[in-house]
Amino acid sequence: MSKSMTFNVEELKQYVVQFLRAHEIPEIEARIAADVLVSADMRGITSHGVIRLHSYYGDGLRRGKINPESPITTINESAATLALDGGNGLGPVVAYRAMSRCIDLADQAGLAMTTVRNSNHYGIAGYYAMMALPDDMIGISLTNSQPLVAPTFGKNVALGTNPIAVAIPAGTERPYVLDMATSIVSIGKIVVHDKAGVPIPEGWAINQEGELTHKPAEVLNNGALLPLGGPAELRGYKGYGLSLLVDLLSGVLSGAAYGMDVGAPSSTENANVGHFFAAVKIENFRPVDDFKTDMDRYIRKLKATEKLPGHDRIFIHGEKEFELAERAIKTGVPLMPEVVEALEQAGREAGVPFDVQPGQ
Amino acid sequence: MSKSMTFNVEELKQYVVQFLRAHEIPEIEARIAADVLVSADMRGITSHGVIRLHSYYGDGLRRGKINPESPITTINESAATLALDGGNGLGPVVAYRAMSRCIDLADQAGLAMTTVRNSNHYGIAGYYAMMALPDDMIGISLTNSQPLVAPTFGKNVALGTNPIAVAIPAGTERPYVLDMATSIVSIGKIVVHDKAGVPIPEGWAINQEGELTHKPAEVLNNGALLPLGGPAELRGYKGYGLSLLVDLLSGVLSGAAYGMDVGAPSSTENANVGHFFAAVKIENFRPVDDFKTDMDRYIRKLKATEKLPGHDRIFIHGEKEFELAERAIKTGVPLMPEVVEALEQAGREAGVPFDVQPGQ
Repeated sequence: MSKSMTFNVEELKQYVVQFLRAHEIPEIEARIAADVLVSADMRGITSHGVIRLHSYYGDGLRRGKINPESPITTINESAATLALDGGNGLGPVVAYRAMSRCIDLADQAGLAMTTVRNSNHYGIAGYYAMMALPDDMIGISLTNSQPLVAPTFGKNVALGTNPIAVAIPAGTERPYVLDMATSIVSIGKIVVHDKAGVPIPEGWAINQEGELTHKPAEVLNNGALLPLGGPAELRGYKGYGLSLLVDLLSGVLSGAAYGMDVGAPSSTENANVGHFFAAVKIENFRPVDDFKTDMDRYIRKLKATEKLPGHDRIFIHGEKEFELAERAIKTGVPLMPEVVEALEQAGREAGVPFDVQPGQ
Repeated sequence: MSKSMTFNVEELKQYVVQFLRAHEIPEIEARIAADVLVSADMRGITSHGVIRLHSYYGDGLRRGKINPESPITTINESAATLALDGGNGLGPVVAYRAMSRCIDLADQAGLAMTTVRNSNHYGIAGYYAMMALPDDMIGISLTNSQPLVAPTFGKNVALGTNPIAVAIPAGTERPYVLDMATSIVSIGKIVVHDKAGVPIPEGWAINQEGELTHKPAEVLNNGALLPLGGPAELRGYKGYGLSLLVDLLSGVLSGAAYGMDVGAPSSTENANVGHFFAAVKIENFRPVDDFKTDMDRYIRKLKATEKLPGHDRIFIHGEKEFELAERAIKTGVPLMPEVVEALEQAGREAGVPFDVQPGQ
């Protein structure tokens, strides 16, 4: 595999801001979206990073499919609940605003939930869950997404990879940050295997006949991803249940599209993606210091349990990503040459040349 | 396998009430616990049904380990949040009261969350989630449990099978009711295979050396269950993350025991089990009728998608259990002869003979 190049975090963000500004995204909103996109690369979730600047956003903005003003309207509001319409705006901007308002409500009410309809792909789910951490709150972020996953006993796609993200603060230890697709792997993993000519492990996905396959090309040709758990014997119907749950909360409860009707970023129709956010104030349940002391103690105990032969570490969710992000701040954001080429091409097409120099 | 006998629902419940009354559980509380236990058998979740009358409850009550008065106290309360201490009471009673108060709060505030510390095994998680359905609310019920599951890359148990239950109402279709352990299977499944002398499928569990095993006896002898997803290649760390999440919300946020410290029903110490409940009023987000119409449409579309060869039905979560419960009301609750024998033995020991006649 080719060697990655590294880019200064702020310079990379600044380029994304310029790119989005050139697509009529206002300055503040462009900064929000840039932070979400670059954070994905910093945290090692490259499938949702700047490689998507074109396919998630630039492309849709140029076709007039995404409203650059992200005109959010309130459908329903109470002391602890909020239902929003994202105005077919930029996903990360709509999601950031929705989670911000959710946190504000939770600050008063002790907890809050916010649904969003009529939005677009919001990037990494974990970003919005983590927004709750500085306020000593638990953050939850769910979204539905284009159909890529087959239900248990089903032959075709019917559900999205619908991620679940939950962030929970700790004391001196790093926070717990779960950010998982409810499918075994994302479609990006299949694409990577296909491009590299490497077979996929049995259980990840099925071909268009509904048979388990090792061939990534068969999955991409009208096949389907399998939900977490895989076959029924290993309880894949639980992963199917979680995927459905995410869609019921972020799609049906919000009044957005759901199931087969959720648009892909590349579709010509409005995607009408739905999101669901929650924020929970810890001090409403017990003193924050006690909570954090127990979080630290639990994390340390888990990490100290005996390891399997060949393994020297037990991970807490989010830990690897925090380490990668800290390294990216020091030594730059790693991007593969193919990603840099794609940015250069997108930049040329958009009249915003990608002029960030690697190495920092 | 031996043939099951069937018992009239109300007669079976009445026996459980008598049994609990003889253990100083007040009448109303005994009725609550009987309904939870018998509902498990009616819904086909026999591992959590009346077979546990002795091991979950009778045994602990006789040893003075469970407080039959279930003296619940309030630690913290606000308009939408509630933190309770279960007073080391009977799990189903504490959980029922906690979820009832959660629903009452949500009726006013639009949503509510309730944590519980110092409780005991509460039976099936789904029971409490489903309590929200008649009020057109979404119900959530989580609990931690004794350590039986190894974290990814870990050799020994460190987490419980910590279930997730969510109930969401539909219109003319049956509600969606997810009620899943975050391990691939429950320990009860391993016991059943062990008793029957049948090997377990690869991936369910490991032996005390941390190796995947087909031998149920090896799992029961200091082995461990694996989290949903199984091996790292199939993303077992997501199941591990869900198990941990349930414990952080029901154990750490509540101030109960967590991880290795959660007591088993058979332990001599107080179990200090923690629960987490939430109720969400649908009308705070969108009109209930619109929501239900979409639920029905989504369920029908999922069920109508093409099936894998050899399968003629796609299930929605809870559907099989509703069908079993409806059948149990008509033709009786099926119990295996071994369960009936255990009830007879428990009844003799407790001085409350099991005198319910099979067939109805």
